[in-house]
Amino acid sequence: MSEIRVRSKVWLEHAGHPLLGEGRYQLLTQIDQAGSISAAARTLGISYRKAWAQLSSLEENAPFPMLERQTGGKGGGATRLTEQARQLLQDYRSLRRQVQNAADRCFKEHFC
Amino acid sequence: MSEIRVRSKVWLEHAGHPLLGEGRYQLLTQIDQAGSISAAARTLGISYRKAWAQLSSLEENAPFPMLERQTGGKGGGATRLTEQARQLLQDYRSLRRQVQNAADRCFKEHFC
Repeated sequence: MSEIRVRSKVWLEHAGHPLLGEGRYQLLTQIDQAGSISAAARTLGISYRKAWAQLSSLEENAPFPMLERQTGGKGGGATRLTEQARQLLQDYRSLRRQVQNAADRCFKEHFC
Repeated sequence: MSEIRVRSKVWLEHAGHPLLGEGRYQLLTQIDQAGSISAAARTLGISYRKAWAQLSSLEENAPFPMLERQTGGKGGGATRLTEQARQLLQDYRSLRRQVQNAADRCFKEHFC
Protein backbone atom coordinates (compact mmCIF):
# COMPACT_ATOMS: atom_id res chain seq x y z
CA MET A 1 0.00 0.00 0.00
CA SER A 2 3.04 2.27 0.32
CA GLU A 3 2.78 3.47 -3.26
CA ILE A 4 -0.78 4.78 -2.82
CA ARG A 5 -1.06 8.57 -2.73
CA VAL A 6 -3.97 10.93 -2.26
CA ARG A 7 -4.49 13.89 -4.57
CA SER A 8 -7.00 16.69 -4.29
CA LYS A 9 -8.31 19.60 -6.26
CA VAL A 10 -10.33 22.57 -5.10
CA TRP A 11 -12.01 25.32 -7.05
CA LEU A 12 -14.47 28.16 -6.63
CA GLU A 13 -17.64 28.67 -8.60
CA HIS A 14 -19.67 31.83 -8.88
CA ALA A 15 -23.34 31.59 -9.85
CA GLY A 16 -22.73 28.03 -11.08
CA HIS A 17 -19.76 28.91 -13.33
CA PRO A 18 -16.05 28.25 -12.68
CA LEU A 19 -14.46 31.22 -10.95
CA LEU A 20 -11.02 30.16 -9.76
CA GLY A 21 -9.17 26.86 -10.11
CA GLU A 22 -5.56 25.91 -10.65
CA GLY A 23 -5.23 27.23 -14.24
CA ARG A 24 -6.63 30.70 -13.57
CA TYR A 25 -4.75 30.84 -10.27
CA GLN A 26 -1.44 30.28 -12.08
CA LEU A 27 -2.27 32.85 -14.74
CA LEU A 28 -3.33 35.56 -12.28
CA THR A 29 -0.31 34.90 -10.08
CA GLN A 30 2.02 35.33 -13.06
CA ILE A 31 0.25 38.55 -14.11
CA ASP A 32 0.66 39.82 -10.56
CA GLN A 33 4.38 39.11 -10.69
CA ALA A 34 5.09 40.22 -14.26
CA GLY A 35 2.65 43.13 -14.55
CA SER A 36 1.61 42.09 -18.05
CA ILE A 37 -0.51 39.44 -19.74
CA SER A 38 2.02 38.70 -22.48
CA ALA A 39 4.89 38.14 -20.01
CA ALA A 40 2.64 35.91 -17.88
CA ALA A 41 1.62 33.87 -20.95
CA ARG A 42 5.28 33.46 -21.96
CA THR A 43 6.23 32.20 -18.49
CA LEU A 44 3.38 29.66 -18.55
CA GLY A 45 4.18 28.56 -22.12
CA ILE A 46 0.72 29.42 -23.44
CA SER A 47 -0.23 31.79 -26.28
CA TYR A 48 -1.30 35.36 -25.59
CA ARG A 49 -4.60 34.51 -27.27
CA LYS A 50 -5.25 31.65 -24.86
CA ALA A 51 -4.38 33.77 -21.81
CA TRP A 52 -6.63 36.53 -23.06
CA ALA A 53 -9.53 34.09 -23.62
CA GLN A 54 -9.14 32.72 -20.07
CA LEU A 55 -9.17 36.23 -18.61
CA SER A 56 -12.11 37.30 -20.69
CA SER A 57 -14.21 34.36 -19.51
CA LEU A 58 -13.06 34.99 -15.92
CA GLU A 59 -14.02 38.66 -15.97
CA GLU A 60 -17.39 37.92 -17.51
CA ASN A 61 -18.33 35.80 -14.53
CA ALA A 62 -16.40 37.32 -11.61
CA PRO A 63 -18.42 39.10 -8.90
CA PHE A 64 -15.94 42.01 -8.81
CA PRO A 65 -13.29 43.53 -11.13
CA MET A 66 -10.16 41.37 -11.29
CA LEU A 67 -7.81 43.38 -13.50
CA GLU A 68 -6.78 47.00 -13.95
CA ARG A 69 -5.39 47.87 -17.36
CA GLN A 70 -3.06 50.83 -17.80
CA THR A 71 -2.56 51.67 -21.45
CA GLY A 72 0.32 53.61 -23.03
CA GLY A 73 3.09 55.39 -21.15
CA LYS A 74 6.76 54.47 -21.11
CA GLY A 75 7.24 50.79 -22.02
CA GLY A 76 3.63 50.34 -23.16
CA GLY A 77 0.58 49.22 -21.16
CA ALA A 78 0.50 47.20 -17.96
CA THR A 79 -2.06 44.91 -16.37
CA ARG A 80 -2.42 44.73 -12.62
CA LEU A 81 -4.61 42.74 -10.30
CA THR A 82 -7.19 44.60 -8.23
CA GLU A 83 -6.86 44.35 -4.46
CA GLN A 84 -9.91 42.08 -4.40
CA ALA A 85 -8.35 39.72 -6.94
CA ARG A 86 -5.11 39.63 -4.93
CA GLN A 87 -7.09 38.79 -1.80
CA LEU A 88 -8.96 36.06 -3.69
CA LEU A 89 -5.66 34.45 -4.73
CA GLN A 90 -4.44 34.53 -1.15
CA ASP A 91 -7.65 32.93 0.13
CA TYR A 92 -7.50 30.32 -2.63
CA ARG A 93 -3.94 29.39 -1.63
CA SER A 94 -5.08 28.90 1.93
CA LEU A 95 -8.08 26.85 0.79
CA ARG A 96 -5.92 24.64 -1.39
CA ARG A 97 -3.40 24.05 1.40
CA GLN A 98 -6.03 23.23 4.03
CA VAL A 99 -7.87 20.86 1.70
CA GLN A 100 -4.72 18.92 0.82
CA ASN A 101 -3.76 18.83 4.53
CA ALA A 102 -7.16 17.35 5.36
CA ALA A 103 -6.76 14.79 2.57
CA ASP A 104 -3.30 13.82 3.82
CA ARG A 105 -4.49 13.50 7.42
CA CYS A 106 -7.48 11.37 6.52
CA PHE A 107 -5.38 9.29 4.16
CA LYS A 108 -2.90 8.50 6.93
CA GLU A 109 -5.73 7.42 9.25
CA HIS A 110 -7.22 5.00 6.75
CA PHE A 111 -4.49 3.92 4.40
CA CYS A 112 -1.18 3.97 6.26
CA MET B 1 -20.14 37.07 -2.54
CA SER B 2 -23.11 34.94 -1.52
CA GLU B 3 -23.22 33.09 -4.81
CA ILE B 4 -19.63 31.83 -4.48
CA ARG B 5 -19.30 28.11 -3.70
CA VAL B 6 -16.36 25.85 -3.09
CA ARG B 7 -16.04 22.50 -4.82
CA SER B 8 -13.50 19.76 -4.25
CA LYS B 9 -12.35 16.52 -5.76
CA VAL B 10 -10.20 13.82 -4.27
CA TRP B 11 -8.69 10.73 -5.82
CA LEU B 12 -6.16 8.00 -5.10
CA GLU B 13 -3.19 7.12 -7.24
CA HIS B 14 -1.14 3.94 -7.13
CA ALA B 15 2.41 3.97 -8.47
CA GLY B 16 1.63 7.23 -10.28
CA HIS B 17 -1.52 5.97 -12.03
CA PRO B 18 -5.15 6.76 -11.15
CA LEU B 19 -6.54 4.17 -8.75
CA LEU B 20 -9.86 5.48 -7.45
CA GLY B 21 -11.78 8.65 -8.23
CA GLU B 22 -15.44 9.49 -8.59
CA GLY B 23 -16.09 7.52 -11.81
CA ARG B 24 -14.60 4.24 -10.64
CA TYR B 25 -16.14 4.74 -7.21
CA GLN B 26 -19.61 4.95 -8.77
CA LEU B 27 -19.02 1.92 -10.97
CA LEU B 28 -17.69 -0.27 -8.15
CA THR B 29 -20.49 0.81 -5.82
CA GLN B 30 -23.08 -0.17 -8.43
CA ILE B 31 -21.38 -3.54 -9.02
CA ASP B 32 -21.42 -4.11 -5.28
CA GLN B 33 -25.15 -3.41 -5.17
CA ALA B 34 -26.17 -5.18 -8.37
CA GLY B 35 -23.73 -8.10 -8.35
CA SER B 36 -23.07 -7.76 -12.08
CA ILE B 37 -21.15 -5.47 -14.43
CA SER B 38 -23.94 -5.25 -17.00
CA ALA B 39 -26.57 -4.22 -14.42
CA ALA B 40 -24.16 -1.63 -12.98
CA ALA B 41 -23.47 -0.21 -16.46
CA ARG B 42 -27.20 0.01 -17.17
CA THR B 43 -27.83 1.91 -13.93
CA LEU B 44 -25.05 4.36 -14.74
CA GLY B 45 -26.18 4.79 -18.35
CA ILE B 46 -22.86 3.66 -19.82
CA SER B 47 -22.14 0.81 -22.22
CA TYR B 48 -20.96 -2.57 -20.99
CA ARG B 49 -17.86 -2.09 -23.12
CA LYS B 50 -17.02 1.18 -21.36
CA ALA B 51 -17.56 -0.31 -17.90
CA TRP B 52 -15.42 -3.28 -18.83
CA ALA B 53 -12.62 -1.02 -20.11
CA GLN B 54 -12.67 1.01 -16.87
CA LEU B 55 -12.46 -2.15 -14.77
CA SER B 56 -9.72 -3.62 -16.89
CA SER B 57 -7.56 -0.51 -16.49
CA LEU B 58 -8.35 -0.45 -12.76
CA GLU B 59 -7.36 -4.07 -12.21
CA GLU B 60 -4.15 -3.65 -14.18
CA ASN B 61 -2.96 -1.01 -11.76
CA ALA B 62 -4.58 -1.93 -8.43
CA PRO B 63 -2.30 -3.17 -5.64
CA PHE B 64 -4.71 -6.01 -4.76
CA PRO B 65 -7.55 -7.92 -6.48
CA MET B 66 -10.71 -5.82 -6.75
CA LEU B 67 -13.23 -8.21 -8.28
CA GLU B 68 -14.23 -11.84 -7.96
CA ARG B 69 -15.90 -13.33 -11.00
CA GLN B 70 -18.23 -16.29 -10.68
CA THR B 71 -19.08 -17.80 -14.05
CA GLY B 72 -22.06 -19.98 -14.99
CA GLY B 73 -24.61 -21.37 -12.54
CA LYS B 74 -28.27 -20.45 -12.30
CA GLY B 75 -28.90 -16.98 -13.78
CA GLY B 76 -25.41 -16.79 -15.35
CA GLY B 77 -22.21 -15.34 -13.89
CA ALA B 78 -21.88 -12.76 -11.14
CA THR B 79 -19.21 -10.22 -10.26
CA ARG B 80 -18.48 -9.33 -6.67
CA LEU B 81 -16.11 -6.95 -4.97
CA THR B 82 -13.33 -8.40 -2.86
CA GLU B 83 -13.30 -7.44 0.82
CA GLN B 84 -10.30 -5.22 0.16
CA ALA B 85 -12.13 -3.38 -2.62
CA ARG B 86 -15.14 -2.89 -0.37
CA GLN B 87 -12.89 -1.48 2.35
CA LEU B 88 -11.25 0.83 -0.19
CA LEU B 89 -14.66 2.23 -1.19
CA GLN B 90 -15.53 2.84 2.44
CA ASP B 91 -12.24 4.63 3.08
CA TYR B 92 -12.68 6.68 -0.09
CA ARG B 93 -16.14 7.80 1.05
CA SER B 94 -14.67 8.96 4.33
CA LEU B 95 -11.82 10.73 2.53
CA ARG B 96 -14.21 12.51 0.19
CA ARG B 97 -16.44 13.64 3.05
CA GLN B 98 -13.59 14.92 5.21
CA VAL B 99 -12.00 16.78 2.29
CA GLN B 100 -15.25 18.55 1.37
CA ASN B 101 -15.84 19.36 5.07
CA ALA B 102 -12.38 20.94 5.27
CA ALA B 103 -13.07 22.91 2.09
CA ASP B 104 -16.41 24.16 3.48
CA ARG B 105 -14.87 25.14 6.83
CA CYS B 106 -12.00 27.02 5.26
CA PHE B 107 -14.33 28.65 2.74
CA LYS B 108 -16.52 29.98 5.55
CA GLU B 109 -13.50 31.44 7.34
CA HIS B 110 -12.27 33.33 4.29
CA PHE B 111 -15.22 33.98 2.06
CA CYS B 112 -18.31 34.29 4.23
